[in-house]
Amino acid sequence: MNSFGRVFRIHLFGESHGKAIGVCVDGCPPGVPLAEKDFIHDLSRRRPGARGTTPRKEKDSPEILAGVFNGHTTGAPITITFANENIRPKDYSFVVDQPRPGHADMAAAHRFRGFQDYRGGGHFSGRMTLALVAAGVVAKKLLGDIRISAALVEAGGQRDIDKAVENAMREGDSIGGIVECTAENIPMGWGEPFFDSVESVISHLVFAIPAIKGIGFGSGFRSATMKGSGHNDPILDKSGKTKTNHAGGITGGLTNGNLLEFRVAVKPTSSIAREQRSLHTKTNKVEAMKVAGRHDACIALRVPVVVEAVTAIALADFQMLYR
Amino acid sequence: MNSFGRVFRIHLFGESHGKAIGVCVDGCPPGVPLAEKDFIHDLSRRRPGARGTTPRKEKDSPEILAGVFNGHTTGAPITITFANENIRPKDYSFVVDQPRPGHADMAAAHRFRGFQDYRGGGHFSGRMTLALVAAGVVAKKLLGDIRISAALVEAGGQRDIDKAVENAMREGDSIGGIVECTAENIPMGWGEPFFDSVESVISHLVFAIPAIKGIGFGSGFRSATMKGSGHNDPILDKSGKTKTNHAGGITGGLTNGNLLEFRVAVKPTSSIAREQRSLHTKTNKVEAMKVAGRHDACIALRVPVVVEAVTAIALADFQMLYR
Amino acid sequence: MNSFGRVFRIHLFGESHGKAIGVCVDGCPPGVPLAEKDFIHDLSRRRPGARGTTPRKEKDSPEILAGVFNGHTTGAPITITFANENIRPKDYSFVVDQPRPGHADMAAAHRFRGFQDYRGGGHFSGRMTLALVAAGVVAKKLLGDIRISAALVEAGGQRDIDKAVENAMREGDSIGGIVECTAENIPMGWGEPFFDSVESVISHLVFAIPAIKGIGFGSGFRSATMKGSGHNDPILDKSGKTKTNHAGGITGGLTNGNLLEFRVAVKPTSSIAREQRSLHTKTNKVEAMKVAGRHDACIALRVPVVVEAVTAIALADFQMLYR
Amino acid sequence: MNSFGRVFRIHLFGESHGKAIGVCVDGCPPGVPLAEKDFIHDLSRRRPGARGTTPRKEKDSPEILAGVFNGHTTGAPITITFANENIRPKDYSFVVDQPRPGHADMAAAHRFRGFQDYRGGGHFSGRMTLALVAAGVVAKKLLGDIRISAALVEAGGQRDIDKAVENAMREGDSIGGIVECTAENIPMGWGEPFFDSVESVISHLVFAIPAIKGIGFGSGFRSATMKGSGHNDPILDKSGKTKTNHAGGITGGLTNGNLLEFRVAVKPTSSIAREQRSLHTKTNKVEAMKVAGRHDACIALRVPVVVEAVTAIALADFQMLYR
Repeated sequence: MNSFGRVFRIHLFGESHGKAIGVCVDGCPPGVPLAEKDFIHDLSRRRPGARGTTPRKEKDSPEILAGVFNGHTTGAPITITFANENIRPKDYSFVVDQPRPGHADMAAAHRFRGFQDYRGGGHFSGRMTLALVAAGVVAKKLLGDIRISAALVEAGGQRDIDKAVENAMREGDSIGGIVECTAENIPMGWGEPFFDSVESVISHLVFAIPAIKGIGFGSGFRSATMKGSGHNDPILDKSGKTKTNHAGGITGGLTNGNLLEFRVAVKPTSSIAREQRSLHTKTNKVEAMKVAGRHDACIALRVPVVVEAVTAIALADFQMLYR
Repeated sequence: MNSFGRVFRIHLFGESHGKAIGVCVDGCPPGVPLAEKDFIHDLSRRRPGARGTTPRKEKDSPEILAGVFNGHTTGAPITITFANENIRPKDYSFVVDQPRPGHADMAAAHRFRGFQDYRGGGHFSGRMTLALVAAGVVAKKLLGDIRISAALVEAGGQRDIDKAVENAMREGDSIGGIVECTAENIPMGWGEPFFDSVESVISHLVFAIPAIKGIGFGSGFRSATMKGSGHNDPILDKSGKTKTNHAGGITGGLTNGNLLEFRVAVKPTSSIAREQRSLHTKTNKVEAMKVAGRHDACIALRVPVVVEAVTAIALADFQMLYR
Repeated sequence: MNSFGRVFRIHLFGESHGKAIGVCVDGCPPGVPLAEKDFIHDLSRRRPGARGTTPRKEKDSPEILAGVFNGHTTGAPITITFANENIRPKDYSFVVDQPRPGHADMAAAHRFRGFQDYRGGGHFSGRMTLALVAAGVVAKKLLGDIRISAALVEAGGQRDIDKAVENAMREGDSIGGIVECTAENIPMGWGEPFFDSVESVISHLVFAIPAIKGIGFGSGFRSATMKGSGHNDPILDKSGKTKTNHAGGITGGLTNGNLLEFRVAVKPTSSIAREQRSLHTKTNKVEAMKVAGRHDACIALRVPVVVEAVTAIALADFQMLYR
Repeated sequence: MNSFGRVFRIHLFGESHGKAIGVCVDGCPPGVPLAEKDFIHDLSRRRPGARGTTPRKEKDSPEILAGVFNGHTTGAPITITFANENIRPKDYSFVVDQPRPGHADMAAAHRFRGFQDYRGGGHFSGRMTLALVAAGVVAKKLLGDIRISAALVEAGGQRDIDKAVENAMREGDSIGGIVECTAENIPMGWGEPFFDSVESVISHLVFAIPAIKGIGFGSGFRSATMKGSGHNDPILDKSGKTKTNHAGGITGGLTNGNLLEFRVAVKPTSSIAREQRSLHTKTNKVEAMKVAGRHDACIALRVPVVVEAVTAIALADFQMLYR
């Protein structure tokens, strides 16, 4: 199920070390200006290379294969591909014998009966988020005044993120983090009861991003410790504006005219330089292993733009329903 | 979008104070024994009446309208309805003029242009979870060895739940809580990359339950504070069993042979006896209000069986894909 | 897959001799006036009782269980049920042993492993079209100026339909017929390339109606015998109006501003009074059989309103996408 | 809506004169041997170049971008693209001013507000069927013993197809035709009541093929002229085999163990060399026009392999549900 959306729909494809990864965006209205340069800004925010991210470098240049004519979307599906260039297939052959802890290696091998492309995580790779970001760029173009903004607010439990990353790198270890996302200017009343609450749709997409393990809207898990008299947000005016925003901009699954706010928990990168232990399927014993390759000490550093992308995708689909 | 599922599909309908609420379950295989008595156990766990829950009492007897013949499912859609009996329509007319904080009243009125059934929350009512529980009963029947179990583990931030509820009731207030859910014996490899990760599908359904504001799988938000060396679960044997279970039984969006574990945050009941403040749409001023009616001091008390139901619904749909 | 539609969605349920049949209509906008009396006209057109139709008489009174408040749709799902009243369960028990030619008896028993409700065709019964007609009534309400009109134009290969039916009844036999359907005032450009061409969506729904074996749009099968110079419809003005309408109002899968026109072939009723031959599963021999019960000599007589209904359902869904 | 299917799903993209067209096939099981050479046979059957088909020549070499590893499908989406090479963009610029009769030009311009890629029909081009054929090759691989076979049985109303084509070419005109398709060895009981009858799903896909205007299953439109006693197919044995096959292998929307048979009507190619008349949008008058470019005198010649492809796609999706 590599598809998502009802009217604004995306279809992902590709593997980390295959020819290409990409996305087909269907349901985008005609007449939206779109060119390959429009992707640069968001793609660069996702790009590895910063301290604490993998040194694998790809140009990651998008190619628009279809759906754009004379510089505008046509209303036909938009297919965007990214060639995989910096591939070292031999790095990964070991995962067949000794599945990496924290990765999908073993479950994927079981499910796909050994035929999965195991190189670099294949279709499970974080590299797939490149396609999400590309689809997000298209979605953002549709959203007009709605501004989505995500940032890493905590890493390894600390607010001083640089230091936390530094420490993790020194230890050959990795750390997780918290990404906070907001979206302003969403009209009141978006969301599709009963099942497609705004929280439902956003969380569905957010949990498709590798490494996400939690999400909370508004006060999130803190809500569980509060009293109704403190949690209820008093409504102040006809725009729906509330005095507080414990609800994170969503009541009854519908946007309520306030800032959409949610936080996601990103687990520490599973691939670490330190020695780990895992079953060796040949010897059937738990043995030491080292995961070679290029790793992110803190994958959460690259997650904000991906969270923005999926939020934009979710909102664009709602918007298309209410045009 | 009152439908969910790909093969095992459910369609919800009804309003709190209309004639009936119900669910149509499509895609259930033929030959499953099913009778109205099968619903009693789970429905009674959801029923109000306990301390801290609303005194509204309904018999909540399910009627199977279609899809069962000679005591077994036929393969045709199963429609189950619940008549609404204990209705006091006048209780709720005020919400038109003064939307209740924490409720969907204002957003729903905007979205449905004043035509929504506002009585008792209408289609947004927690009463809709009755239909979820009923669908969950059918789903559980399909799951064989898979055992799902949810419980309230914390209320108002405290482990002594009875006391916390007692306090809230005395204060005319309400409290939230944490519900923990586990599912054992799920085969390895369930989940549909890229978008229908197990986390994605479960969270989608969980956030359709009114009052849920957060979800975390395995170590959840605590993952964000951990290091990779501590978070990665070492794989011990060919069944996929791991030494720890920080992943909550899911890696790469696929079940990995371990216990599925997640926790959800339930906000405090929005309807409280205490005086609150909210915009009065006639005077266009913020005014004091009291929400009359029958309330739950801690709606989280009734949520566990609903969380079990949606988990069963999610898993039944995966199972149908892999039969 | 008892569901159809993307935005305007319908879910059918029920069996001919169970408690009820019905339909849940989701995605209907709020504020549409709707009452049980609105269904009378179309339901009466479908009702048996006329010469050539089964003498089974049901009151066929719709009950709106949900989705209507103060005489208007609320935006929540609309569930409409029809109680089954005039049931004679013993009439049909024989189909288990000797499947009726032309019916789904044998294939259904195989598929549903003997658990299907075989009484009166169960979920395969033509009675299910009652639910289609009800959904069609809701759909027609949304379509404003668009007028859909279907009629039986031929029965048993003859234009004098009364005589053809009379003859069939006298012979204890049945006849098929041709239903012609038109829809006027559809805006130009409806249809969703590549797969949801207007022809695709209408034919999908039309072939869900029991007994339909063919469909042709515009000149239909006659197109295959024509030349391009004769078949191409010259465009006359900016409204898209064409001199001829061999295309039946659809080019490239899109409505083109002309009258939508199609014809469907209805096979003769499968249940006939005359003796037939079929396998007896107990003796494993082909044996003579008589299908007792109440039959339509020409089921095509009751099909036009059903064809109108599915056309309205198809068009309402397109319209919701283009609002 | 460029997607089709529930479990075996295809997503089409591309334009006739853009960079590429292609298809993404999702839901294909892992372990199916697949290489680019596997497409050659069916692609060559669709290729232009024969008498009566367009002289536009493309190599039409498929490139598998994703989803295949070590010569086998991986379970991840399979993306197949075809570069567009033999492009003459200037050929088509006139359609903006004077929409071609029989084509989607005008409706598409209206619907996509002038942004559609009008070159060679763009996304409406018959060239898109290349992607269908490619998806069909994958589908056929899944179908094991099921053999699908389609052929042109009539052109321009005549059985001597060569002569009919010859005449049309001489006249600068075009002709339609009838394609007959059969599928053998389909297990009994496939089809998904109520809406996804086998006829519904096949006709949905068939009418997505450009130029199709009619479809009939079994006796098709002839059914409408028959009597029940003649149309009902007597069941002969436990395999469901019937003495006749007026039903075309489908009863109650389910396959019944007999040969699946249907016929489709293909209209004459809309693009003809002869002078035609159509509105000129600049002068707002009906004026003479000549459609330059490379045309098929009988597009029906190239349709059989496309009909096979969509039949395979429909059956593969059913099969995946019943594995």
